Amino acid sequence: MHTAGELQSKIEKGLEQLSTEKSPVELYEPIRYMLSLGGKRMRPLLVLMGCDMFKGNVEKAVPAALGIELFHNFTLLHDDIMDKAPLRRSKQTVHEKWNVNTAILSGDAMFVKSFQLMMMTDDSIVKEVVDIFSRTAIEVCEGQQLDMNFENHNDICIADYINMISCKTAVLLGTSLQIGALIGGASSAHARHLYNFGKNIGIAFQLQDDLLDVYGDKTKFGKQVGGDILSDKKTFLFLKALEVLDESSNKALEELYTKSKVNAQEKLESVISLFNKAHVKELAKDEMQHFHNNALQHFSEIHLPAENKKPLLDFCENLLVREI
Amino acid sequence: MHTAGELQSKIEKGLEQLSTEKSPVELYEPIRYMLSLGGKRMRPLLVLMGCDMFKGNVEKAVPAALGIELFHNFTLLHDDIMDKAPLRRSKQTVHEKWNVNTAILSGDAMFVKSFQLMMMTDDSIVKEVVDIFSRTAIEVCEGQQLDMNFENHNDICIADYINMISCKTAVLLGTSLQIGALIGGASSAHARHLYNFGKNIGIAFQLQDDLLDVYGDKTKFGKQVGGDILSDKKTFLFLKALEVLDESSNKALEELYTKSKVNAQEKLESVISLFNKAHVKELAKDEMQHFHNNALQHFSEIHLPAENKKPLLDFCENLLVREI
Repeated sequence: MHTAGELQSKIEKGLEQLSTEKSPVELYEPIRYMLSLGGKRMRPLLVLMGCDMFKGNVEKAVPAALGIELFHNFTLLHDDIMDKAPLRRSKQTVHEKWNVNTAILSGDAMFVKSFQLMMMTDDSIVKEVVDIFSRTAIEVCEGQQLDMNFENHNDICIADYINMISCKTAVLLGTSLQIGALIGGASSAHARHLYNFGKNIGIAFQLQDDLLDVYGDKTKFGKQVGGDILSDKKTFLFLKALEVLDESSNKALEELYTKSKVNAQEKLESVISLFNKAHVKELAKDEMQHFHNNALQHFSEIHLPAENKKPLLDFCENLLVREI
Repeated sequence: MHTAGELQSKIEKGLEQLSTEKSPVELYEPIRYMLSLGGKRMRPLLVLMGCDMFKGNVEKAVPAALGIELFHNFTLLHDDIMDKAPLRRSKQTVHEKWNVNTAILSGDAMFVKSFQLMMMTDDSIVKEVVDIFSRTAIEVCEGQQLDMNFENHNDICIADYINMISCKTAVLLGTSLQIGALIGGASSAHARHLYNFGKNIGIAFQLQDDLLDVYGDKTKFGKQVGGDILSDKKTFLFLKALEVLDESSNKALEELYTKSKVNAQEKLESVISLFNKAHVKELAKDEMQHFHNNALQHFSEIHLPAENKKPLLDFCENLLVREI
C-alpha cells in the first residue's frame, strides 16, 4: 500500500509528463495554464486509492487518474464560461485571460485527451472502464444543465437538488473510485459498491459545503459567511427552509432572495433568522448523516482486510469531520 | 454490396433510433434539433462504404457511422458559436435559437455520445478504432484553431493552408473510411491507404470549393459568386495569388482585402482580375489534380476486386467532377 503523498507525487509527475507542448500554441497553452492552477487533485487520488485498496499496480491506474483530472478540468473550463466566472483558484479564468472561443476549443481538446488517457487501460477491462467514464461524463453535463435551470425555476424540491449535486459533482467522485478499483482487479460488484460509497460521500460533502457557507467558522475556513445567500443560490438550506416554513415565512424568504432591496448585512441576518426558525442546520446535518450512512453501508459490502480499506476510509472521513 | 441509398437509409434509421428523448430537455432538445437539420450524411456514408468494400457486415459499422456523424455535428455546433454564425442549413444555429451556454453544453454531450457509439465496436478492434477517432478529433480541434489564427495572421503560406484544411475537414473523411474498413475486416495497412485516399480527396474537394466560389457557374451551384472574397477569407486562390504576383499587385490585393472602401461589385471585379493575372484558376486545378492523384495512388494499393472498389470510387469521383 502507498501513502497519499506517494500517490499524489505520481499524479503530479504524470501531469508534468503530459505532452501539451504542441502546436498550435493557442490551443495548448490554455490547457497547460488550466492544469498549472493546481487544485487538490482529489479525483485522480481517489482513482489511485481505489486501485491500491485492491493491491493493484497503481502505475497502471495513472493514465486513467490523469484522464479523470483532465475531464474535471475540462468541465471547470466550460462551466467558467457559462457562469461568466472571472477567477478560478484566484487566477484569471481561461476565457478571461484569452477569450471565449479559445476556452471552448481548448476545453474540447482536453476532453478528447481525457478519453485518450482512459483508452490506455488494459484491454480486458477497457470497455467497462470507458463505458463507466462516458456515462458519468453525460451525467456531469446533465448536472450542469440542471444547475443552470435552477436559476430560472421556482419549483425545485429537495429531491431535484440532491439529483443535481449528485450528477454535477458526486458521481465523478464515485466513478474515480470505481475505475481505480477495476484497474486494481476488483470485481464489478465490489467496484460498484465503491462507486456508491464515493457518490454518497460526495453528496454529504456538498451538503456540508452548503452548511459551511452559513454556519461555518469563517476564521477556520477562510470564506466569507453567506456567499451563497448573497448570490441567491438555491442551496439545500434554502430549499429545506421553504419546505418547512409556513406560508408567510416562505413568502418573506422568497422575497429576500428575489426582490430584496435591503443591504447585504440585513439580507444575511434576515435569511439566517428564517433558516434558524426552520432548523435547517439540524435538518441538513441529518441529511448529511443519511448519505454518510449510505456510504458506509456500501463500504461494508467490500470484503477486504481492514488495513486495505483504512487509508481510503480515513481520507473520506477527514473530508467530513469539520465541526459545524 | 449495398447501394448508397440502402446505406443512407440505415444511417437515417440509426439517427432516429438514437435515444435523445431524455431529461433535462434543455440539454437534449438542441441535440435533436441539430441532427434534424439534415445534411448530406457524407461521413457516416463513407464509414459504411469503407466497411462494405471489404464485404464486412455493415450493421456492425452503423454505431461508428453514427458516432462520426454526431462528432461532426458537435464540431459544427461549437464552430458556429466561435464564428458567430446565425444560420446553419438555412435554419437558426443552436446558440441563436437557444443561447451560447446551451450550445456549449449540448455540444459537449453530443461529443460524449459520439465516443459511446465508437465504443460499441467489436472488442478485437475497439482500441485501434477509438485511437484513430481520438487522434482525428484532436486534429479537428487543431484545424479549427489554425483557421481562427489565420484571420489575424498575415504570413500564411500555401503549406499552412493545406495543413489547416487537412486538419479541419479532410482527416475526418479519411478517418471515416479507415474506421469503416477496419470494422469490415480490412488489414491495418489497407485501412491506412483508404484513410490517405479519403484525406487527399478531402483536400482536393476543399480546393474545389475555393475554386467554385469564384469560378463556379452560379446558375448551376446556386451560390453567390465571390462570397469568400467579400468576407476576406484567405483561400487557396488568395494565398496563391500573393505567392505568384509581383510586389505592387500583391499590395493592391492585400489592400482590397483589408483596407478597401470600394463597393462589393468593384471589390469582386478587382480581386478576380488580380486572381486571373496570377492564373490562380489553373494553379488551383493543378493542385487539386495533385491531391486527386495522391488519392488514386493510395486507392491502387488496396488489393480488392474492381467491383468492390467501384461504388466508393464512383462516389468520390462524383464529388470532384463538377466542371470549372
